[in-house]
Amino acid sequence: MRALIALGGNAMTGRGGSATPRDQGRAIEQAMQHVAELVAGGVEVVLTHGNGPQVGNLLVKNELAASVVPPVPLDWCGAQTQGTIGFLILDALDRALATRGVERPVAALVTRTRVDAADPGFTAPTKPIGRYLPRTEAQVLLEHGQTWEDRGAKGWRRVVASPEPLEILDAPAIRALGEAGFIVVGAGGGGIPVVREPDGRLRGVEAVIDKDLAAALLARQVAADVLVIATDVDHAILDYGTPDARPLGHVTPEQMRAYAAAGQFASGSMGPKVEAAVRFVEQGGRRSVITSLQRIGEAVSGDAGTTVARP
Amino acid sequence: MRALIALGGNAMTGRGGSATPRDQGRAIEQAMQHVAELVAGGVEVVLTHGNGPQVGNLLVKNELAASVVPPVPLDWCGAQTQGTIGFLILDALDRALATRGVERPVAALVTRTRVDAADPGFTAPTKPIGRYLPRTEAQVLLEHGQTWEDRGAKGWRRVVASPEPLEILDAPAIRALGEAGFIVVGAGGGGIPVVREPDGRLRGVEAVIDKDLAAALLARQVAADVLVIATDVDHAILDYGTPDARPLGHVTPEQMRAYAAAGQFASGSMGPKVEAAVRFVEQGGRRSVITSLQRIGEAVSGDAGTTVARP
Repeated sequence: MRALIALGGNAMTGRGGSATPRDQGRAIEQAMQHVAELVAGGVEVVLTHGNGPQVGNLLVKNELAASVVPPVPLDWCGAQTQGTIGFLILDALDRALATRGVERPVAALVTRTRVDAADPGFTAPTKPIGRYLPRTEAQVLLEHGQTWEDRGAKGWRRVVASPEPLEILDAPAIRALGEAGFIVVGAGGGGIPVVREPDGRLRGVEAVIDKDLAAALLARQVAADVLVIATDVDHAILDYGTPDARPLGHVTPEQMRAYAAAGQFASGSMGPKVEAAVRFVEQGGRRSVITSLQRIGEAVSGDAGTTVARP
Repeated sequence: MRALIALGGNAMTGRGGSATPRDQGRAIEQAMQHVAELVAGGVEVVLTHGNGPQVGNLLVKNELAASVVPPVPLDWCGAQTQGTIGFLILDALDRALATRGVERPVAALVTRTRVDAADPGFTAPTKPIGRYLPRTEAQVLLEHGQTWEDRGAKGWRRVVASPEPLEILDAPAIRALGEAGFIVVGAGGGGIPVVREPDGRLRGVEAVIDKDLAAALLARQVAADVLVIATDVDHAILDYGTPDARPLGHVTPEQMRAYAAAGQFASGSMGPKVEAAVRFVEQGGRRSVITSLQRIGEAVSGDAGTTVARP
């Protein structure tokens, strides 16, 4: 049984999304307890993770230090978070496995995800990132070619492309390490976005990739039996926030697409998770599960969360 | 023939050490031409690299943004540079190989290096990092537990531990990928320094590891035939800066230690390279070469630079 586990932001930040080094470290230590349990149970695990709050912090540093050191582009920020989060996961998972008497090596890979230079996101960016700024400060960054939008009372916010992930370029390395017995961390933050130029050259681009959509792609590329999207709720909920609210158990991809088309899932949160879960199954995967971090063990063994599968 | 190539700062920064994203990218593209030539010639390559200017930039960002986002510790900065430099190397080397018609996959690993918590560097730090600051600003950081030293007219500078690398913890993953046919980038910046606590837990520590000493260790751990330390000069020079200055060709480890003991090599630059070259051979390696990036091909084939080997 091979499982691709996609860890959401809550697995890597403290309460209220705190991304202090200490809170990140503690959250990851907690998360790795659950992952180690899976491994101890004989599941072959490939891990991926989000990086939203971490990239947000890096962007602020870029801005505030711009007059002294050159800011780095967004793809570099993604690469930076693969380093730090990968490192924290390695230490925490090594430890969580050792305390369970499990001897399995762990590895974290710098991972690139190919996107299309013609993706509509690059001409009409939609994904908000980083902090809100007053208009005057946003204006300076607008003049540097960034896209910022007026969000009313909160201020202005940067929007960037969130292109479709087309290929996890470093999936072969993830597979090779898996075959050698490693638990692998890869495609962190959806992978570092790169485009292939007409001459074949790869080039990093300023964008963020949805980590759940990248996870669905990676799950196929590593031939995972199950894709588990770990978040902060046990299930996707129908009619959320109404008296009719009810958790979704087992659904087919067609049912799930119908619910999504009916506007059941928020575009910024549950929407991409549902889309990723459906895609994996539509494109040949056996089963996707959306559930909480605490339930990933049950999810893999087949009885927790919202499961998308063919009947 | 397996070669461990350690790339110095000049392989990753522009003129005068410029570490703008564009200059870093261009320098790495140039460096990868030389590496790709080696690979095209049938050499099995493992790459490692320095990260001094890049960490310097990250420290400045930490300082300048500290009132808005939490600064991250030095081990995290190292991890961040493994992400960005690894990413740039992946793209550039992929391309340099493709233009030579060589189909070899490339991978970059987040890599930790174990050091001793009792290393003397932690009680008496000696390695200067980052920028000079006026006394008043350094004072604030001193009060936060950092060590800063008065460097006279230039200002104050932070000094940190540069502990001995004891084990490249992620060398098994580097080996596994090498065996699967990958050219692997690992132990960037000497590796992320971690200590093993008495209870077995691994913990990142605020330190920097000399990348050449880490390279010598990694070269043994991956059973390299030759360690090549690529820098900006073709040879180590005896009586440097005097009328008797002469390049060193082939030397034994014993001769090299004698030269080093006689103060022939500057402690901050050639000294650690010489120490690394000697160690690799003393500890069972066949041959170490110190030479310029442009000559790494000849160095591996056996006829360039300063070569340390048994007679």
